[in-house]
Amino acid sequence: MNRGKRSLGQGAEGIIEEIKKDVERGSAELAVRAIDAFIALADALRVDSAEELKRSVIMLARQIADSRPSMFSLRNVAFEVAVKFVEASRYVDNPQILKELLKQIATTVFEEYRVALERLRRFGRDLLSGFSSVATLSYSSTVLAVLKEVGKKVKVYVAESRPLFEGRKMAAALAESGIETVLTTDAAIGYMLKEVDAALVGADSILMNGSFANKVGTLQLACTSKFLGKPFYVISTTWKALPTLEYSEEEHAAEEVLPAEVPPIQKIKVRNPYFEVVPAELVTAYITEEGVLKPSQIVELIEARLKKYRELEKIVYG
Amino acid sequence: MNRGKRSLGQGAEGIIEEIKKDVERGSAELAVRAIDAFIALADALRVDSAEELKRSVIMLARQIADSRPSMFSLRNVAFEVAVKFVEASRYVDNPQILKELLKQIATTVFEEYRVALERLRRFGRDLLSGFSSVATLSYSSTVLAVLKEVGKKVKVYVAESRPLFEGRKMAAALAESGIETVLTTDAAIGYMLKEVDAALVGADSILMNGSFANKVGTLQLACTSKFLGKPFYVISTTWKALPTLEYSEEEHAAEEVLPAEVPPIQKIKVRNPYFEVVPAELVTAYITEEGVLKPSQIVELIEARLKKYRELEKIVYG
Repeated sequence: MNRGKRSLGQGAEGIIEEIKKDVERGSAELAVRAIDAFIALADALRVDSAEELKRSVIMLARQIADSRPSMFSLRNVAFEVAVKFVEASRYVDNPQILKELLKQIATTVFEEYRVALERLRRFGRDLLSGFSSVATLSYSSTVLAVLKEVGKKVKVYVAESRPLFEGRKMAAALAESGIETVLTTDAAIGYMLKEVDAALVGADSILMNGSFANKVGTLQLACTSKFLGKPFYVISTTWKALPTLEYSEEEHAAEEVLPAEVPPIQKIKVRNPYFEVVPAELVTAYITEEGVLKPSQIVELIEARLKKYRELEKIVYG
Repeated sequence: MNRGKRSLGQGAEGIIEEIKKDVERGSAELAVRAIDAFIALADALRVDSAEELKRSVIMLARQIADSRPSMFSLRNVAFEVAVKFVEASRYVDNPQILKELLKQIATTVFEEYRVALERLRRFGRDLLSGFSSVATLSYSSTVLAVLKEVGKKVKVYVAESRPLFEGRKMAAALAESGIETVLTTDAAIGYMLKEVDAALVGADSILMNGSFANKVGTLQLACTSKFLGKPFYVISTTWKALPTLEYSEEEHAAEEVLPAEVPPIQKIKVRNPYFEVVPAELVTAYITEEGVLKPSQIVELIEARLKKYRELEKIVYG
């Protein structure tokens, strides 16, 4: 579990294991757990020197980033805590005081994250309150939060999102909030698009050319929206943006698509990719905590952060 | 079962019931059964006059057309038999001779249909033999026949086609023929499209503006093909073309999408459309028994047939 000789303490390591295995929660929810890991580290770790604590914090940031490489927001919040801590540790060398400082920094980053989500919800509400119906797919806690903010005025069409049907969870959560909800298949969401004012999805990651990664099915929804002249929005904090063009498009178990006992499985190959990259030109706008941004504005924003991230990478990866 | 006083005989009526209930076979396969119904009528029906037989033939054509209104090929083959029979019955008035004539006409129409499929397979093979991989969805006996003709050179990606997974049947049939077959979800077929040379689908019906109807999911596949610059082919005999713009987009049981016992069903609405119309501008070409036709050529062909169909409708519907 622990790569080096050093242990990060049961609490922090438990949270990393939890993040690795969690296929239920989205990246926004797991980012909050990543912040908890730093507080757990401060609470449990026994260190003799400031230097030792600093190494542990950097190691934890690295492990969080590596736990789910495709979830950029995890990397970003972990790096944010680490870089702020390294900065602060220049002026303090008492390990006990530094541990308190780490907890304060983690709390500050959590607060920044919370405020970002709140601002995003407000921008989302302002934009979407003009719509009477929208289409989405899969489950996104960010999209859900924005739609709850918009409230009962909007009717939501949700695609079920095979193979694991996360769309059912989304539909259930929307319906619980009193929102008029229609669940359909991934194949039929294109048919339903004709009835809506706009399509909107969450994002797993935003890449530096303004494209984004999300659950498979998003590319077809975006292309069909473009063809039908429907606006296509991505709802995501900029915490999910990283200056990279690489994205690991891992594939999952064939049995999720076709149970092993179904006869054709012997002769056919089954493929089960989870995520795909959708080009910037299909995105009408990103709804973020910085406002409603065109893909070109997202590119500018990522470029402006590139310098900061480079320094941060240098500090975290040495 | 029988609307008028007259019975069409157990054989013919049984076949109509069979066609009404069949959700397994495609329209190409059911068209052949419709031809069988005329032979069954000739074999079983007791008539005293040529006039009586003519009325029965017209009634059968009408009932076949009404059995599955969205399957235009059923209507076309039935009308084709009826109009040829009405034509022939001008010169003969012996009911026994006319019954033999009806069987001959039905056999002739079946032969025309068989030849059309054979020609279509040849045009399909010539066009597709340049491709190393293609994507498709659902099950189509016509697409399957063409892909078998192309043989093992082509790799085929098949979307499972929720809710009833007809894509599994397609994948199994392709794999049985020794064709390299990849099965994936309807959501992931857009992701796979990047890896193929072309997309191709069957058609349920071709409408007079050059658009066509097919299983839901086809619109998204077509829009994504257009965006990615992949050719998009519809493989269908022109027997599926009718001079109409109306298409009944019926919806099926919600339970096929979400089993009644899954908790969210109480508060959410489930929708389950089966077919959708895809605009002509998304179609690169129709692969038909008349050759590889642009949508504009399909429009010309349907217009040329309009006059004949009008006469036919007048005779059949009186």
